[in-house]
Amino acid sequence: MTSTKPHSKDLSVYFTESAKQRDNSPLKSLMKYMSADPALVSLGAGLPHPSTFPLGALTTLVAQPGHMLSECAHPPATSIQVNQPTSKTEGLERFLQYGNGRGVPSYSAFARTHTASVHNPPYADWDVVPSVGNTDAFVKALMLFCDRGDTLVVDEWTYPAILGTVGPMGIRVASVRMDAEGAVPEDLDRVCGENRVRVAYMIPTAQNPTGATMSLERKRAVYAVAQKHDLVLIEDDPYYYLQFGAYEEPAEGVDRLRGLPGIKGLIPSLLSLDTDGRVIRLDSFSKILAPGLRCGWVTAPRYIADKIQFHNETTVQQPSGLSQALVSKLLNEDWGHSGWESHLLRTQREYAVRRDVFVDLCREKLKGLAEFTVPQAGMFLWFRIVLPPQLEQRQGVMDEVFARMIEKHVLLVPGRMFSAKGVDGPYMRAAFSYASVEDLGVAVDRLREALLTFQQEK
Amino acid sequence: MTSTKPHSKDLSVYFTESAKQRDNSPLKSLMKYMSADPALVSLGAGLPHPSTFPLGALTTLVAQPGHMLSECAHPPATSIQVNQPTSKTEGLERFLQYGNGRGVPSYSAFARTHTASVHNPPYADWDVVPSVGNTDAFVKALMLFCDRGDTLVVDEWTYPAILGTVGPMGIRVASVRMDAEGAVPEDLDRVCGENRVRVAYMIPTAQNPTGATMSLERKRAVYAVAQKHDLVLIEDDPYYYLQFGAYEEPAEGVDRLRGLPGIKGLIPSLLSLDTDGRVIRLDSFSKILAPGLRCGWVTAPRYIADKIQFHNETTVQQPSGLSQALVSKLLNEDWGHSGWESHLLRTQREYAVRRDVFVDLCREKLKGLAEFTVPQAGMFLWFRIVLPPQLEQRQGVMDEVFARMIEKHVLLVPGRMFSAKGVDGPYMRAAFSYASVEDLGVAVDRLREALLTFQQEK
Repeated sequence: MTSTKPHSKDLSVYFTESAKQRDNSPLKSLMKYMSADPALVSLGAGLPHPSTFPLGALTTLVAQPGHMLSECAHPPATSIQVNQPTSKTEGLERFLQYGNGRGVPSYSAFARTHTASVHNPPYADWDVVPSVGNTDAFVKALMLFCDRGDTLVVDEWTYPAILGTVGPMGIRVASVRMDAEGAVPEDLDRVCGENRVRVAYMIPTAQNPTGATMSLERKRAVYAVAQKHDLVLIEDDPYYYLQFGAYEEPAEGVDRLRGLPGIKGLIPSLLSLDTDGRVIRLDSFSKILAPGLRCGWVTAPRYIADKIQFHNETTVQQPSGLSQALVSKLLNEDWGHSGWESHLLRTQREYAVRRDVFVDLCREKLKGLAEFTVPQAGMFLWFRIVLPPQLEQRQGVMDEVFARMIEKHVLLVPGRMFSAKGVDGPYMRAAFSYASVEDLGVAVDRLREALLTFQQEK
Repeated sequence: MTSTKPHSKDLSVYFTESAKQRDNSPLKSLMKYMSADPALVSLGAGLPHPSTFPLGALTTLVAQPGHMLSECAHPPATSIQVNQPTSKTEGLERFLQYGNGRGVPSYSAFARTHTASVHNPPYADWDVVPSVGNTDAFVKALMLFCDRGDTLVVDEWTYPAILGTVGPMGIRVASVRMDAEGAVPEDLDRVCGENRVRVAYMIPTAQNPTGATMSLERKRAVYAVAQKHDLVLIEDDPYYYLQFGAYEEPAEGVDRLRGLPGIKGLIPSLLSLDTDGRVIRLDSFSKILAPGLRCGWVTAPRYIADKIQFHNETTVQQPSGLSQALVSKLLNEDWGHSGWESHLLRTQREYAVRRDVFVDLCREKLKGLAEFTVPQAGMFLWFRIVLPPQLEQRQGVMDEVFARMIEKHVLLVPGRMFSAKGVDGPYMRAAFSYASVEDLGVAVDRLREALLTFQQEK
C-alpha cells in the first residue's frame, strides 16, 4: 500500500446496470453530521437500545496456537472474553449493534493487515470488505459484471454452488479444460476468444472437486490471459492455507511433514500478481477456524469493495457480530499474527497426515482400479475410475459404479455433479477431510471391492 | 398444524423463471444414502475435521428474563454455555460445522413452536426457514415472484433498503397511500387494479418510517384485497413484539405501563389471518435480542420455504452457528417460552417509557410546530412539520428545516429518504429508541428552537 504502487485499472465500465445503481443508503449519508458535531443529539438511526440486549461477556475456550483444542491439557486451553472495549477490539455492545456493510473495524483491520502481509497486492487502492462466506461473496462479485444472458468462465469440473447460482440467474457458463494444475491457460485463451466473456471463476488452490493446485507459473500464465482479454478473475481460495506440499513415499526415519509451508511458504496467490486490480479474491475462515462462523472477507480495488459493501447493506448487512467478535479478539489480541501462523501450521499438519494416509492406501490398494493426481492441498482426491474398454462407453456405467460402492457401504460423489457442461465422466470425488483415519482405511478396502467387480466383468 | 386445516393455495404458477430453477444442491441428494445406511463410510461431504475447530465451550452471561442485564445484580445474571449436546440443543461442534439452508434443528424448532403458538397459521403446510435478518430474507422472498420489469407494491413512505434493493434489480414500485394505520386498503385495491402486480411489501407494526400500526380490522381489509387480486404479501414485522398500546396522558397515580401486551395481547398478524398461504412473514431477533446476531426466520408455505432454503444454500448458507447456538440455548433451554415472554414484556416496557417521555415532551413543546400520530409500537415518531402557508410550496424548504436542525445540534431523518416516489414532503422521522431519556428532552428543546424560526418567518 505504498504510494509507489500503481492505481488499479478502472473496470467499472463493465459494471452491469444493477451494479452501477448500487449506492450507499441515503440514511448512511447522515453519518457525516454525527461525526462532525460532538454536541449533536441524533434521533436518526433506528437502533435498538443496547440496554435491551440480554447478552454479556461472550466467552469461549480457545486452543493454544499450534495445538488442537483436544490436546490442550498441557498447555491448557485459554479462555477469551469479549466484554468491554480494549485497545485492540471493540466492546461486545458494538458487536451486538447494527453497523454498516464494512463490518466492525477491528475485524476488517485484521483482514486488511493479514492481506497486506501475505499477499501484498501490487496496486495501491485495494481494500477489504467482510463477507458471510465465499458463496455469498461470489454472488455479489458476479453480479457486478454479469447479468442474465452473459457468460461466466468456469473450470470444466467446478463447485456445484456456482452452477446452482448461475443457472437461476440465466447466466451461461463456458468451461475451460483442466490438467493436474487446474485450468489450462491456452484453453482459457481459446474460450475467451470464442465467447464474449468478462469474468472467470477459479479455485486456484485444491480446486473443488479435482484437488488441483496451480503453481506460481500457472498463475502467471492465467493472469497474462486475463490481461489479454481484460478479464475479471474471481479467485475463490478457501483452501489457500491448507497447502501441505508434495507427497513423499513413506520411508524409515523420514519426517514427511517437515515441509509444511505455514504462511511464508504458501504459493503466491493471484492477488499477489495483480498489478491491474482485476482479481476479486474471496477468503474465508470456514476451513481454518470453523464454517459455522459464516465469515470471511473479499479483497478488491476499493471501488469494487464499496459496491460489495452497498450490496451487503441491502442483504446480509455484515457477518454475525458474535463471529466477528471472537475472530477479532482471537486474531488481534489473543493469538495475534504469529499465533495465527502456528494455528495454520497445525491445521496443515492435520490434513497432510490424512492426505498421506489416504494416498498411501489408495496407491497400495487401488492400483489398476483408479487413477489420481496426488493433491498438494485441501481436502479432496479426484479419482479417474479405470474401466475395462468394453465398459467405458456403456450408458450409465458410472451409476453402476456408484451403486456398487453404496452396496459396499462407501460413498463418494459422482463426478457429473461437478460438470459445468452437465456431462458424465469416469470420475469420483473423495473427501479425506472428515472421516476418521481408521475409516479412511475401511473406505479404501470397500472401494477396492466395489471396483474389482468391474475389472472382472468380461 | 392440525390436519383439519386447508392446504395452501399453489402460487408457484407465479414463480419467476429463476425461482423455478432453484433446486436442492445435487450433493445434498446424497444425504439419503447416509441416513439409510448406518454402516456407510462417507467420503462425500467436504467438511473440515472438527478437531481443527479451535473454539469450545461458548459461554455468555444472560439477563434474568424480565430484567435488563444491567439490573441483574439481584437477581444475578446467569451464564449459559453451549458445549456438549443436551436433550434440547445440539453440541457446539454441530453449530460450528457446515449444515444446510434450513439451519440447525433446535434453532428452527424454536421458531416453529413459537410461530405455531403466537400466529397459529390457519393452513396446514406452513414451515419456517432461518434467515440472516429480514433485509436478506426480503430479497429472497421478492426474487421468487419479481423479476426485472415487474412492479412491487409498497407504502408511499417505506424502508429505504427496500428501495435500495428493487432499484438495482430493475423492479418498479407502485405506492399505496397511507393513513394513521398504514396502507389504505381502498388505495391498495386501486393500485392493484391499475398495475400488473403480484407482491405487496408491508411493515404492519410500527411501520418504518411512519410508526403506523395496523389494527386487526385493517389487516383483515388488506388481506381481503390481497385475496381479490391473488397477491403475495411480504409481512416484514421486526417490531411486532415491540407493541405497547395506546398513549395515555400522564396522571397522578396512574400506571401508564399497566397495559403492555406481552405476547398474548399482541395484535394478530397477517400470517394469523392467512387461510390461503399467501403471506411470507419475516421475523427477526434484531430488535428483541440484538441486531448483531444477524438471525431471524421466515414463515411461509413449505414449497416457498423450500425455495428460500435452496437460495440460502447458494448464498448465506445459514445464520452464524454462534448466533444460532446462543439463541437456541437461551430460548429452548434457559429461558424457555415463558422466560421469552417475560423478556419481551420487559423490552416493551423500555420502549413504552421512551415513547411516553418523548410524546409528553413533543405534545408540550412542539404544539403548532409539528404534528404526529402517537405510535403504539416500535421506535419511530413521524413528524409532519407545520410550515406557514407561504413556505409550504417553497422549493427546498425541507432542506432548510434540516439545516436549521443541524445548526441546533439535533438530527432527524428527512422524509424524502423514505419516499417510494422519490418526492419530498414536510416529514421527518425521529427514532426515540436509542438516545438517552435525558437526550430526548434536549432534542425536543432544540427541535422547538429550530422550528420556531420558520413560524416566525413572514
